[in-house]
Amino acid sequence: MATNQFDTSLPSIRQVQKCIKEKLTVEFRLMTGDLITGRIFWQDHNCICVFDGNNEQIMVWKQAIAYMKPFSDTVA
Amino acid sequence: MATNQFDTSLPSIRQVQKCIKEKLTVEFRLMTGDLITGRIFWQDHNCICVFDGNNEQIMVWKQAIAYMKPFSDTVA
Amino acid sequence: MATNQFDTSLPSIRQVQKCIKEKLTVEFRLMTGDLITGRIFWQDHNCICVFDGNNEQIMVWKQAIAYMKPFSDTVA
Amino acid sequence: MATNQFDTSLPSIRQVQKCIKEKLTVEFRLMTGDLITGRIFWQDHNCICVFDGNNEQIMVWKQAIAYMKPFSDTVA
Amino acid sequence: MATNQFDTSLPSIRQVQKCIKEKLTVEFRLMTGDLITGRIFWQDHNCICVFDGNNEQIMVWKQAIAYMKPFSDTVA
Amino acid sequence: MATNQFDTSLPSIRQVQKCIKEKLTVEFRLMTGDLITGRIFWQDHNCICVFDGNNEQIMVWKQAIAYMKPFSDTVA
Repeated sequence: MATNQFDTSLPSIRQVQKCIKEKLTVEFRLMTGDLITGRIFWQDHNCICVFDGNNEQIMVWKQAIAYMKPFSDTVA
Repeated sequence: MATNQFDTSLPSIRQVQKCIKEKLTVEFRLMTGDLITGRIFWQDHNCICVFDGNNEQIMVWKQAIAYMKPFSDTVA
Repeated sequence: MATNQFDTSLPSIRQVQKCIKEKLTVEFRLMTGDLITGRIFWQDHNCICVFDGNNEQIMVWKQAIAYMKPFSDTVA
Repeated sequence: MATNQFDTSLPSIRQVQKCIKEKLTVEFRLMTGDLITGRIFWQDHNCICVFDGNNEQIMVWKQAIAYMKPFSDTVA
Repeated sequence: MATNQFDTSLPSIRQVQKCIKEKLTVEFRLMTGDLITGRIFWQDHNCICVFDGNNEQIMVWKQAIAYMKPFSDTVA
Repeated sequence: MATNQFDTSLPSIRQVQKCIKEKLTVEFRLMTGDLITGRIFWQDHNCICVFDGNNEQIMVWKQAIAYMKPFSDTVA
Protein backbone atom coordinates (compact mmCIF):
# COMPACT_ATOMS: atom_id res chain seq x y z
CA MET A 1 0.00 0.00 0.00
CA ALA A 2 1.26 3.43 -0.87
CA THR A 3 3.26 5.09 1.88
CA ASN A 4 2.23 8.64 1.19
CA GLN A 5 4.97 11.20 1.06
CA PHE A 6 4.59 14.79 2.14
CA ASP A 7 7.00 16.45 -0.22
CA THR A 8 5.71 19.87 -1.21
CA SER A 9 7.20 19.55 -4.68
CA LEU A 10 5.01 16.55 -5.53
CA PRO A 11 2.13 17.29 -7.93
CA SER A 12 -0.39 15.62 -5.60
CA ILE A 13 0.66 17.80 -2.66
CA ARG A 14 0.78 20.94 -4.83
CA GLN A 15 -2.69 20.19 -6.20
CA VAL A 16 -4.07 20.23 -2.65
CA GLN A 17 -2.13 23.44 -1.93
CA LYS A 18 -3.65 24.98 -5.08
CA CYS A 19 -7.13 24.08 -3.77
CA ILE A 20 -6.32 25.79 -0.47
CA LYS A 21 -5.02 28.98 -2.10
CA GLU A 22 -7.80 29.27 -4.66
CA LYS A 23 -10.47 28.28 -2.11
CA LEU A 24 -11.84 25.65 -4.45
CA THR A 25 -14.68 23.41 -3.36
CA VAL A 26 -13.59 19.82 -3.66
CA GLU A 27 -15.15 16.43 -3.12
CA PHE A 28 -13.39 13.61 -1.32
CA ARG A 29 -14.47 10.03 -1.76
CA LEU A 30 -13.44 7.98 1.26
CA MET A 31 -12.75 4.27 1.66
CA THR A 32 -15.91 4.11 3.78
CA GLY A 33 -17.95 5.29 0.80
CA ASP A 34 -18.52 8.71 2.41
CA LEU A 35 -18.41 11.84 0.29
CA ILE A 36 -16.93 14.89 2.00
CA THR A 37 -17.46 18.16 0.15
CA GLY A 38 -15.95 21.47 1.13
CA ARG A 39 -12.96 23.77 1.08
CA ILE A 40 -9.57 22.59 2.19
CA PHE A 41 -8.22 24.49 5.17
CA TRP A 42 -4.83 22.80 5.57
CA GLN A 43 -2.98 19.55 4.95
CA ASP A 44 -0.14 17.88 6.75
CA HIS A 45 1.52 14.49 6.53
CA ASN A 46 -1.42 12.63 8.06
CA CYS A 47 -4.57 14.59 7.33
CA ILE A 48 -6.45 17.05 5.16
CA CYS A 49 -8.73 19.44 7.00
CA VAL A 50 -11.96 20.41 5.22
CA PHE A 51 -14.68 22.94 5.99
CA ASP A 52 -17.94 21.48 4.76
CA GLY A 53 -21.16 23.28 3.79
CA ASN A 54 -22.19 23.58 7.46
CA ASN A 55 -18.80 25.14 8.23
CA GLU A 56 -17.90 22.05 10.22
CA GLN A 57 -14.19 21.35 10.40
CA ILE A 58 -13.61 17.76 9.27
CA MET A 59 -10.15 16.28 9.70
CA VAL A 60 -9.85 13.57 7.04
CA TRP A 61 -7.09 10.98 7.45
CA LYS A 62 -5.22 10.64 4.14
CA GLN A 63 -5.17 6.87 4.61
CA ALA A 64 -8.94 6.94 4.08
CA ILE A 65 -9.01 8.91 0.80
CA ALA A 66 -9.89 7.14 -2.44
CA TYR A 67 -10.01 10.19 -4.67
CA MET A 68 -10.48 13.96 -4.78
CA LYS A 69 -12.35 15.93 -7.44
CA PRO A 70 -11.99 19.70 -7.54
CA PHE A 71 -15.54 20.89 -8.33
CA SER A 72 -14.42 24.33 -9.47
CA ASP A 73 -12.58 22.81 -12.44
CA THR A 74 -15.83 21.84 -14.10
CA VAL A 75 -17.94 24.80 -12.96
CA ALA A 76 -15.51 27.68 -13.48
CA MET B 1 -1.25 4.25 2.32
CA ALA B 2 -0.28 7.05 4.61
CA THR B 3 2.29 6.11 7.22
CA ASN B 4 1.06 8.33 10.02
CA GLN B 5 3.65 10.37 11.83
CA PHE B 6 3.47 11.27 15.47
CA ASP B 7 5.20 14.61 15.42
CA THR B 8 3.65 16.94 17.98
CA SER B 9 4.25 19.96 15.76
CA LEU B 10 1.97 18.61 13.03
CA PRO B 11 -1.41 20.35 12.77
CA SER B 12 -3.27 17.02 12.82
CA ILE B 13 -1.56 15.95 16.05
CA ARG B 14 -2.03 19.41 17.60
CA GLN B 15 -5.71 19.40 16.66
CA VAL B 16 -6.19 16.20 18.66
CA GLN B 17 -4.20 17.70 21.55
CA LYS B 18 -6.48 20.74 21.43
CA CYS B 19 -9.50 18.46 21.72
CA ILE B 20 -7.95 16.80 24.77
CA LYS B 21 -7.15 20.10 26.51
CA GLU B 22 -10.48 21.75 25.77
CA LYS B 23 -12.42 18.55 26.53
CA LEU B 24 -14.26 18.81 23.24
CA THR B 25 -16.72 16.13 22.23
CA VAL B 26 -15.67 14.72 18.88
CA GLU B 27 -16.99 12.18 16.44
CA PHE B 28 -14.79 9.61 14.74
CA ARG B 29 -15.88 7.86 11.59
CA LEU B 30 -14.10 4.53 11.26
CA MET B 31 -13.28 2.41 8.23
CA THR B 32 -15.82 -0.11 9.54
CA GLY B 33 -18.55 2.53 9.24
CA ASP B 34 -18.77 2.85 13.04
CA LEU B 35 -19.24 6.27 14.61
CA ILE B 36 -17.44 6.77 17.93
CA THR B 37 -18.46 9.89 19.84
CA GLY B 38 -16.82 11.13 22.99
CA ARG B 39 -13.97 13.02 24.59
CA ILE B 40 -10.38 12.23 23.76
CA PHE B 41 -8.37 11.06 26.76
CA TRP B 42 -4.96 10.56 25.11
CA GLN B 43 -3.29 9.80 21.83
CA ASP B 44 -0.06 8.06 20.99
CA HIS B 45 1.57 6.83 17.80
CA ASN B 46 -0.88 3.96 17.32
CA CYS B 47 -4.14 4.90 18.99
CA ILE B 48 -6.55 7.57 20.18
CA CYS B 49 -8.34 6.79 23.44
CA VAL B 50 -11.93 8.06 23.72
CA PHE B 51 -14.43 8.15 26.59
CA ASP B 52 -17.85 7.72 25.07
CA GLY B 53 -21.23 8.74 26.48
CA ASN B 54 -21.34 5.67 28.73
CA ASN B 55 -17.90 6.57 30.07
CA GLU B 56 -16.49 3.52 28.33
CA GLN B 57 -12.85 3.81 27.41
CA ILE B 58 -12.49 2.99 23.71
CA MET B 59 -9.00 2.61 22.27
CA VAL B 60 -9.31 3.45 18.57
CA TRP B 61 -6.50 2.38 16.26
CA LYS B 62 -5.48 5.33 14.07
CA GLN B 63 -5.26 2.98 11.08
CA ALA B 64 -9.05 2.66 11.30
CA ILE B 65 -9.95 6.35 11.32
CA ALA B 66 -11.57 7.92 8.26
CA TYR B 67 -12.28 11.34 9.76
CA MET B 68 -12.82 13.29 12.96
CA LYS B 69 -15.32 16.10 13.50
CA PRO B 70 -15.09 18.22 16.64
CA PHE B 71 -18.74 18.71 17.64
CA SER B 72 -18.03 21.70 19.84
CA ASP B 73 -17.00 23.75 16.81
CA THR B 74 -20.56 23.87 15.52
CA VAL B 75 -22.40 23.91 18.86
CA ALA B 76 -20.28 26.36 20.84
CA MET C 1 -1.98 4.33 7.23
CA ALA C 2 -0.52 4.12 10.67
CA THR C 3 2.63 2.05 10.91
CA ASN C 4 2.08 0.63 14.37
CA GLN C 5 5.00 0.78 16.74
CA PHE C 6 5.71 -1.80 19.38
CA ASP C 7 7.30 0.37 22.02
CA THR C 8 6.39 -0.87 25.49
CA SER C 9 6.38 2.67 26.86
CA LEU C 10 3.53 3.72 24.59
CA PRO C 11 0.15 4.11 26.32
CA SER C 12 -1.58 1.92 23.71
CA ILE C 13 0.88 -0.93 24.26
CA ARG C 14 0.75 -0.50 28.04
CA GLN C 15 -3.04 -0.53 27.97
CA VAL C 16 -2.96 -3.96 26.31
CA GLN C 17 -0.35 -5.14 28.83
CA LYS C 18 -2.64 -3.94 31.64
CA CYS C 19 -5.47 -6.02 30.18
CA ILE C 20 -3.18 -9.08 30.14
CA LYS C 21 -2.04 -8.62 33.74
CA GLU C 22 -5.48 -7.87 35.16
CA LYS C 23 -7.12 -10.59 33.03
CA LEU C 24 -9.72 -8.13 31.78
CA THR C 25 -12.31 -9.22 29.27
CA VAL C 26 -12.07 -6.99 26.23
CA GLU C 27 -13.91 -6.59 22.98
CA PHE C 28 -12.15 -6.04 19.67
CA ARG C 29 -13.94 -4.60 16.69
CA LEU C 30 -12.24 -5.68 13.49
CA MET C 31 -12.14 -4.09 10.03
CA THR C 32 -14.26 -7.04 8.85
CA GLY C 33 -17.01 -6.01 11.25
CA ASP C 34 -16.31 -9.03 13.49
CA LEU C 35 -16.43 -8.64 17.25
CA ILE C 36 -13.89 -10.73 19.18
CA THR C 37 -14.47 -10.89 22.92
CA GLY C 38 -12.13 -12.49 25.41
CA ARG C 39 -9.01 -12.20 27.50
CA ILE C 40 -5.73 -11.16 26.00
CA PHE C 41 -3.02 -13.80 26.31
CA TRP C 42 -0.11 -11.98 24.67
CA GLN C 43 0.73 -9.29 22.15
CA ASP C 44 3.69 -8.80 19.87
CA HIS C 45 4.50 -6.45 17.00
CA ASN C 46 2.06 -8.10 14.60
CA CYS C 47 -0.70 -9.69 16.62
CA ILE C 48 -2.79 -9.81 19.78
CA CYS C 49 -3.71 -13.29 20.97
CA VAL C 50 -7.15 -13.63 22.59
CA PHE C 51 -8.87 -16.50 24.42
CA ASP C 52 -12.56 -16.22 23.67
CA GLY C 53 -15.52 -17.58 25.64
CA ASN C 54 -15.00 -21.06 24.17
CA ASN C 55 -11.36 -20.96 25.23
CA GLU C 56 -10.37 -20.80 21.59
CA GLN C 57 -7.06 -19.11 20.94
CA ILE C 58 -7.60 -16.40 18.32
CA MET C 59 -4.58 -14.64 16.87
CA VAL C 60 -5.80 -11.22 15.75
CA TRP C 61 -3.61 -9.26 13.35
CA LYS C 62 -3.21 -5.69 14.63
CA GLN C 63 -3.69 -4.40 11.08
CA ALA C 64 -7.31 -5.58 11.34
CA ILE C 65 -8.23 -3.86 14.60
CA ALA C 66 -10.58 -0.87 14.57
CA TYR C 67 -10.97 -0.47 18.32
CA MET C 68 -10.74 -2.23 21.68
CA LYS C 69 -13.07 -1.74 24.63
CA PRO C 70 -12.11 -3.18 28.04
CA PHE C 71 -15.42 -4.54 29.40
CA SER C 72 -14.22 -4.62 33.00
CA ASP C 73 -13.91 -0.83 33.04
CA THR C 74 -17.66 -0.41 32.91
CA VAL C 75 -18.67 -3.45 34.97
CA ALA C 76 -16.15 -3.23 37.81
CA MET D 1 0.49 -4.20 2.71
CA ALA D 2 2.60 -3.20 -0.25
CA THR D 3 4.58 -0.03 0.28
CA ASN D 4 4.44 1.27 -3.28
CA GLN D 5 7.67 2.43 -4.78
CA PHE D 6 7.97 5.23 -7.28
CA ASP D 7 10.92 4.03 -9.27
CA THR D 8 10.51 4.98 -12.92
CA SER D 9 12.29 1.82 -14.05
CA LEU D 10 9.60 -0.42 -12.53
CA PRO D 11 7.24 -2.03 -15.07
CA SER D 12 4.18 -0.86 -13.13
CA ILE D 13 5.34 2.77 -13.18
CA ARG D 14 6.38 2.54 -16.84
CA GLN D 15 3.01 1.04 -17.76
CA VAL D 16 1.28 4.11 -16.32
CA GLN D 17 3.78 6.37 -18.14
CA LYS D 18 2.99 4.52 -21.38
CA CYS D 19 -0.72 5.22 -20.82
CA ILE D 20 0.06 8.92 -20.36
CA LYS D 21 2.20 9.17 -23.52
CA GLU D 22 -0.14 7.19 -25.73
CA LYS D 23 -3.23 8.89 -24.27
CA LEU D 24 -4.87 5.53 -23.61
CA THR D 25 -8.23 5.35 -21.92
CA VAL D 26 -7.92 3.21 -18.82
CA GLU D 27 -10.24 1.94 -16.15
CA PHE D 28 -9.35 1.97 -12.47
CA ARG D 29 -11.12 -0.25 -10.00
CA LEU D 30 -10.91 1.23 -6.52
CA MET D 31 -11.09 -0.37 -3.08
CA THR D 32 -14.44 1.41 -2.66
CA GLY D 33 -15.81 -0.49 -5.65
CA ASP D 34 -15.80 2.68 -7.78
CA LEU D 35 -14.78 2.50 -11.43
CA ILE D 36 -12.88 5.52 -12.71
CA THR D 37 -12.46 5.65 -16.48
CA GLY D 38 -10.41 8.19 -18.34
CA ARG D 39 -7.00 9.30 -19.53
CA ILE D 40 -4.09 9.57 -17.16
CA PHE D 41 -2.70 13.08 -16.90
CA TRP D 42 0.17 12.49 -14.44
CA GLN D 43 1.33 10.22 -11.64
CA ASP D 44 3.51 10.85 -8.64
CA HIS D 45 4.42 8.87 -5.54
CA ASN D 46 0.99 9.26 -3.96
CA CYS D 47 -1.56 9.70 -6.71
CA ILE D 48 -2.60 9.16 -10.31
CA CYS D 49 -4.50 12.03 -11.91
CA VAL D 50 -7.22 11.06 -14.40
CA PHE D 51 -9.40 13.08 -16.76
CA ASP D 52 -12.73 11.31 -16.97
CA GLY D 53 -15.34 11.49 -19.74
CA ASN D 54 -16.70 14.80 -18.36
CA ASN D 55 -13.17 16.22 -18.44
CA GLU D 56 -13.20 16.28 -14.66
CA GLN D 57 -9.77 16.01 -13.08
CA ILE D 58 -9.86 13.17 -10.55
CA MET D 59 -6.87 12.69 -8.26
CA VAL D 60 -6.87 9.02 -7.32
CA TRP D 61 -4.80 7.96 -4.31
CA LYS D 62 -2.68 4.93 -5.24
CA GLN D 63 -3.52 3.37 -1.88
CA ALA D 64 -7.09 3.01 -3.13
CA ILE D 65 -6.37 1.25 -6.44
CA ALA D 66 -7.24 -2.43 -6.85
CA TYR D 67 -6.43 -2.74 -10.54
CA MET D 68 -6.05 -0.86 -13.83
CA LYS D 69 -7.14 -2.07 -17.23
CA PRO D 70 -5.98 -0.17 -20.33
CA PHE D 71 -9.08 -0.14 -22.55
CA SER D 72 -7.16 0.80 -25.69
CA ASP D 73 -5.29 -2.50 -25.59
CA THR D 74 -8.41 -4.43 -26.44
CA VAL D 75 -10.15 -1.82 -28.63
CA ALA D 76 -7.26 -0.50 -30.71
CA MET E 1 -1.49 0.21 9.95
CA ALA E 2 0.77 -2.47 11.31
CA THR E 3 3.91 -3.04 9.31
CA ASN E 4 4.26 -6.75 9.92
CA GLN E 5 7.67 -7.98 10.91
CA PHE E 6 9.06 -11.37 9.99
CA ASP E 7 11.23 -12.07 13.00
CA THR E 8 11.20 -15.77 13.81
CA SER E 9 11.47 -15.05 17.52
CA LEU E 10 8.12 -13.24 17.60
CA PRO E 11 5.26 -15.21 19.19
CA SER E 12 3.00 -14.58 16.18
CA ILE E 13 5.56 -15.98 13.75
CA ARG E 14 6.37 -18.91 16.05
CA GLN E 15 2.66 -19.69 16.41
CA VAL E 16 2.39 -20.09 12.65
CA GLN E 17 5.56 -22.22 12.62
CA LYS E 18 4.01 -24.42 15.33
CA CYS E 19 0.94 -24.89 13.12
CA ILE E 20 3.20 -25.96 10.24
CA LYS E 21 5.19 -28.47 12.33
CA GLU E 22 2.19 -29.98 14.08
CA LYS E 23 0.11 -30.00 10.88
CA LEU E 24 -2.75 -28.25 12.62
CA THR E 25 -5.85 -27.30 10.70
CA VAL E 26 -6.40 -23.58 11.05
CA GLU E 27 -8.99 -21.08 9.95
CA PHE E 28 -8.11 -17.69 8.52
CA ARG E 29 -10.59 -14.87 8.46
CA LEU E 30 -9.71 -12.42 5.70
CA MET E 31 -10.48 -8.72 5.29
CA THR E 32 -12.77 -9.74 2.40
CA GLY E 33 -14.87 -11.78 4.80
CA ASP E 34 -13.59 -15.05 3.30
CA LEU E 35 -12.80 -17.98 5.55
CA ILE E 36 -9.83 -20.10 4.46
CA THR E 37 -9.47 -23.41 6.30
CA GLY E 38 -6.57 -25.79 5.93
CA ARG E 39 -3.03 -26.68 6.90
CA ILE E 40 -0.24 -24.18 6.65
CA PHE E 41 2.49 -25.22 4.24
CA TRP E 42 4.88 -22.27 4.65
CA GLN E 43 5.04 -18.62 5.57
CA ASP E 44 7.35 -15.84 4.50
CA HIS E 45 7.39 -12.07 4.95
CA ASN E 46 4.48 -11.48 2.59
CA CYS E 47 2.31 -14.58 2.57
CA ILE E 48 1.06 -17.70 4.31
CA CYS E 49 0.52 -20.71 2.05
CA VAL E 50 -2.41 -22.97 2.98
CA PHE E 51 -3.59 -26.34 1.66
CA ASP E 52 -7.36 -26.37 1.92
CA GLY E 53 -9.71 -29.37 2.10
CA ASN E 54 -9.51 -29.85 -1.69
CA ASN E 55 -5.71 -29.89 -1.47
CA GLU E 56 -5.66 -26.58 -3.29
CA GLN E 57 -2.64 -24.44 -2.56
CA ILE E 58 -3.86 -20.98 -1.52
CA MET E 59 -1.31 -18.21 -1.10
CA VAL E 60 -2.82 -15.77 1.40
CA TRP E 61 -1.31 -12.29 1.60
CA LYS E 62 -0.68 -11.40 5.25
CA GLN E 63 -2.04 -7.92 4.60
CA ALA E 64 -5.45 -9.52 4.13
CA ILE E 65 -5.58 -11.52 7.36
CA ALA E 66 -7.92 -10.44 10.16
CA TYR E 67 -7.39 -13.42 12.46
CA MET E 68 -6.32 -17.07 12.65
CA LYS E 69 -7.88 -19.74 14.82
CA PRO E 70 -6.06 -23.08 15.21
CA PHE E 71 -8.93 -25.62 15.10
CA SER E 72 -6.88 -28.40 16.68
CA ASP E 73 -6.62 -26.42 19.91
CA THR E 74 -10.29 -26.87 20.64
CA VAL E 75 -10.74 -30.34 19.13
CA ALA E 76 -7.59 -32.09 20.35
CA MET F 1 -0.27 -4.07 7.69
CA ALA F 2 2.31 -6.13 5.86
CA THR F 3 4.87 -4.08 4.01
CA ASN F 4 5.44 -6.44 1.10
CA GLN F 5 9.00 -7.16 0.17
CA PHE F 6 10.20 -7.84 -3.35
CA ASP F 7 13.04 -10.21 -2.66
CA THR F 8 13.27 -12.83 -5.39
CA SER F 9 14.43 -15.46 -2.92
CA LEU F 10 11.16 -15.30 -0.97
CA PRO F 11 8.82 -18.27 -1.50
CA SER F 12 5.87 -15.97 -2.25
CA ILE F 13 7.79 -14.12 -4.97
CA ARG F 14 9.18 -17.38 -6.39
CA GLN F 15 5.69 -18.89 -6.46
CA VAL F 16 4.52 -16.04 -8.68
CA GLN F 17 7.63 -16.45 -10.85
CA LYS F 18 6.82 -20.17 -11.17
CA CYS F 19 3.32 -19.26 -12.37
CA ILE F 20 4.83 -16.96 -14.99
CA LYS F 21 7.32 -19.55 -16.30
CA GLU F 22 4.86 -22.43 -16.36
CA LYS F 23 2.06 -20.25 -17.77
CA LEU F 24 -0.32 -21.41 -15.07
CA THR F 25 -3.81 -19.99 -14.88
CA VAL F 26 -4.33 -18.47 -11.47
CA GLU F 27 -7.15 -16.82 -9.61
CA PHE F 28 -6.70 -13.69 -7.56
CA ARG F 29 -9.18 -12.70 -4.90
CA LEU F 30 -9.06 -8.97 -4.30
CA MET F 31 -9.97 -6.86 -1.27
CA THR F 32 -12.87 -5.52 -3.35
CA GLY F 33 -14.28 -9.02 -3.65
CA ASP F 34 -13.34 -9.20 -7.34
CA LEU F 35 -11.98 -12.42 -8.79
CA ILE F 36 -9.33 -11.97 -11.48
CA THR F 37 -8.48 -15.13 -13.41
CA GLY F 38 -5.70 -15.43 -15.96
CA ARG F 39 -2.03 -15.93 -16.63
CA ILE F 40 0.58 -13.80 -14.92
CA PHE F 41 2.66 -11.78 -17.33
CA TRP F 42 5.03 -10.06 -14.89
CA GLN F 43 5.33 -8.87 -11.33
CA ASP F 44 7.26 -6.02 -9.78
CA HIS F 45 7.36 -4.41 -6.35
CA ASN F 46 3.94 -2.80 -6.70
CA CYS F 47 1.89 -4.89 -9.10
CA ILE F 48 1.15 -8.22 -10.74
CA CYS F 49 0.13 -8.05 -14.39
CA VAL F 50 -2.45 -10.63 -15.51
CA PHE F 51 -3.86 -11.56 -18.94
CA ASP F 52 -7.44 -12.60 -18.40
CA GLY F 53 -9.64 -14.82 -20.60
CA ASN F 54 -10.36 -11.90 -22.95
CA ASN F 55 -6.62 -11.29 -23.30
CA GLU F 56 -7.07 -8.03 -21.42
CA GLN F 57 -4.00 -6.87 -19.56
CA ILE F 58 -4.98 -6.19 -15.95
CA MET F 59 -2.45 -4.55 -13.66
CA VAL F 60 -3.35 -5.65 -10.14
CA TRP F 61 -1.91 -3.67 -7.24
CA LYS F 62 -0.41 -6.09 -4.68
CA GLN F 63 -1.95 -4.02 -1.88
CA ALA F 64 -5.35 -5.21 -3.11
CA ILE F 65 -4.65 -8.97 -3.16
CA ALA F 66 -6.25 -11.21 -0.55
CA TYR F 67 -5.13 -14.54 -1.98
CA MET F 68 -3.98 -16.37 -5.10
CA LYS F 69 -4.91 -19.89 -6.12
CA PRO F 70 -3.01 -21.57 -8.97
CA PHE F 71 -5.74 -23.41 -10.88
CA SER F 72 -3.31 -25.72 -12.66
CA ASP F 73 -2.35 -27.32 -9.34
CA THR F 74 -5.74 -28.94 -9.01
CA VAL F 75 -6.41 -29.62 -12.71
CA ALA F 76 -3.02 -30.89 -13.86
